[in-house]
Amino acid sequence: MVEEKTTMIQKNKFAVGVDLGATTVKVGIVSPVGGIIDQFSADAKAGKGPVVVIQQIIFSVQELLSRRKISDCLGIGIGCPGVVSTFDGTVQHPPNFANWTKVDVAKEIRREFKIPVFIENDANCAAIAEARYGAGIEFKDFLFVIWGTGVGGGIILDRKIFRGPHGGAGEIGHISIDYNGRQCNCGNFGCIESYIGQRYLSQRTKELLQARVRDGSRSILETLVDGNYDKIEPVLISQAAEQGDSIAINILTEAGELLGSALASILNVLDLRVVVIGGGISAAPAFVYESIIQSVRSRILKPHKEGVRVIRAKLGNSAGLVGAASLVLS
Amino acid sequence: MVEEKTTMIQKNKFAVGVDLGATTVKVGIVSPVGGIIDQFSADAKAGKGPVVVIQQIIFSVQELLSRRKISDCLGIGIGCPGVVSTFDGTVQHPPNFANWTKVDVAKEIRREFKIPVFIENDANCAAIAEARYGAGIEFKDFLFVIWGTGVGGGIILDRKIFRGPHGGAGEIGHISIDYNGRQCNCGNFGCIESYIGQRYLSQRTKELLQARVRDGSRSILETLVDGNYDKIEPVLISQAAEQGDSIAINILTEAGELLGSALASILNVLDLRVVVIGGGISAAPAFVYESIIQSVRSRILKPHKEGVRVIRAKLGNSAGLVGAASLVLS
Repeated sequence: MVEEKTTMIQKNKFAVGVDLGATTVKVGIVSPVGGIIDQFSADAKAGKGPVVVIQQIIFSVQELLSRRKISDCLGIGIGCPGVVSTFDGTVQHPPNFANWTKVDVAKEIRREFKIPVFIENDANCAAIAEARYGAGIEFKDFLFVIWGTGVGGGIILDRKIFRGPHGGAGEIGHISIDYNGRQCNCGNFGCIESYIGQRYLSQRTKELLQARVRDGSRSILETLVDGNYDKIEPVLISQAAEQGDSIAINILTEAGELLGSALASILNVLDLRVVVIGGGISAAPAFVYESIIQSVRSRILKPHKEGVRVIRAKLGNSAGLVGAASLVLS
Repeated sequence: MVEEKTTMIQKNKFAVGVDLGATTVKVGIVSPVGGIIDQFSADAKAGKGPVVVIQQIIFSVQELLSRRKISDCLGIGIGCPGVVSTFDGTVQHPPNFANWTKVDVAKEIRREFKIPVFIENDANCAAIAEARYGAGIEFKDFLFVIWGTGVGGGIILDRKIFRGPHGGAGEIGHISIDYNGRQCNCGNFGCIESYIGQRYLSQRTKELLQARVRDGSRSILETLVDGNYDKIEPVLISQAAEQGDSIAINILTEAGELLGSALASILNVLDLRVVVIGGGISAAPAFVYESIIQSVRSRILKPHKEGVRVIRAKLGNSAGLVGAASLVLS
């Protein structure tokens, strides 16, 4: 009887998830089983400094909570870019946020709402969400990769996020696949992010298209962007590839091979077998996954080869939000 | 009083450590504080199959135990190459051991001596030893690298070895630093092992020396090997470098830079700051460490840069043995 009652109470309870990005702050009401019940978005105003950003978070959460009983709210979970300390609730150096060194985000939010507040790196939040409710649900251990504007990720060990000794683990985008290669924004050379991130893929496609135009041949991709090469982005490259465009197919196949090289190195060191890929570019056609997995299989150490899998994430854009909320629900 | 007595009893107690290599099996009597009290070595007979290898281990342990009271022996710890299951005591595919697929080494040794037997990967044993008694003693978390014939290692997290989900973590030598680079023995391309392992360093030095001879110039290294280039090995390259030989200096500096590139990638992913380097080549001159650390510092992510250290291991050749014994002592 007691158990039943608890379940009933639990049913009305919810957590608030906050997914803070440099352009948008997304907040959501999330059920104890990871479903999004209600959502709200606002401009993050990342260029205006931390005080304004925190106001935007507070305003968005207030907006959502105004529609429900605050006593049913179990707490607020926040996913932030940058180096996040889950211990003291601070966020350091989130990229593309102005005048931000180290800010105690959790404290500010807690002061406002007076309910439990948890905070975590945004990529880790997405990894946690995929582990609990998404593509990783059947795997105890896996590597989560966010493939989008940049390349990031999270490491799930024994169903928990591995934060590393200082909270900065999982920087998968900054595995160098060529010590003498392209210079990355981070200063290092050959980082996988600098080969397969959105900007590079779009730029590379543009260059190849321009070369092809000089040859006088035509491209599906060119039609898709109406001849405006600045409109090229991975979703259109994927679309063109699905329609058989050879440049698009080559670029995505190569990106898969390179990602596979970086993944093989990480899987060798961490003794992992499963990779879940999320982020904008993870919507790429199946042949890209084939390319990644072939590359991993041909490169990984023999004793690590058995059971290697590379699969698509399931939660799409909402992984960060759901994962943030699930910090409260754990 | 009780505590004192325990310490006294503990004083006479010891553990046996076994360090199984493809050429030699080394066994030692190790005190509870990690000191080697007595040692014995025998041919591992790795070419003769697992039955003979296990006989060699048993014989060596018997030899050592015959000089002491077996009731004082707390147990036997064994370090083995290959994929070692600490759970069921099996060893799979140790490189350079003939006719060896999967062998239950722990069971065989336990049957003979009827005392507790523990088993672990040899690189992990060395990492554990450096963590408990060596250069890693002051660090909770670090990466241990064995730089010798090959490149291996172990990951220490919160003072414990990180084995990974299948017991195969720490394969640092098979981080690729160039997806399009030299083919490694493992089949992958650009593995750091294939650039800085003993064989490659010796071969590269030989080639450069031969080119220099054609120029008519002289080299300290040439004198050291009496003109016999097949005698070139890292210890002599280090010696020549210390005497100012420019080829030797260049080769070791470059090796340090390349190792630094691989290390930066791993430190980025694992959020580690400290690297302890053991193995034969770790005896290289200080300028090699300078080269490694400069490479790591210039390549690692900015938020990970603070506190980065690359230091020499302390226990030398006995790390494997002491670490194996310490499996019993933990």
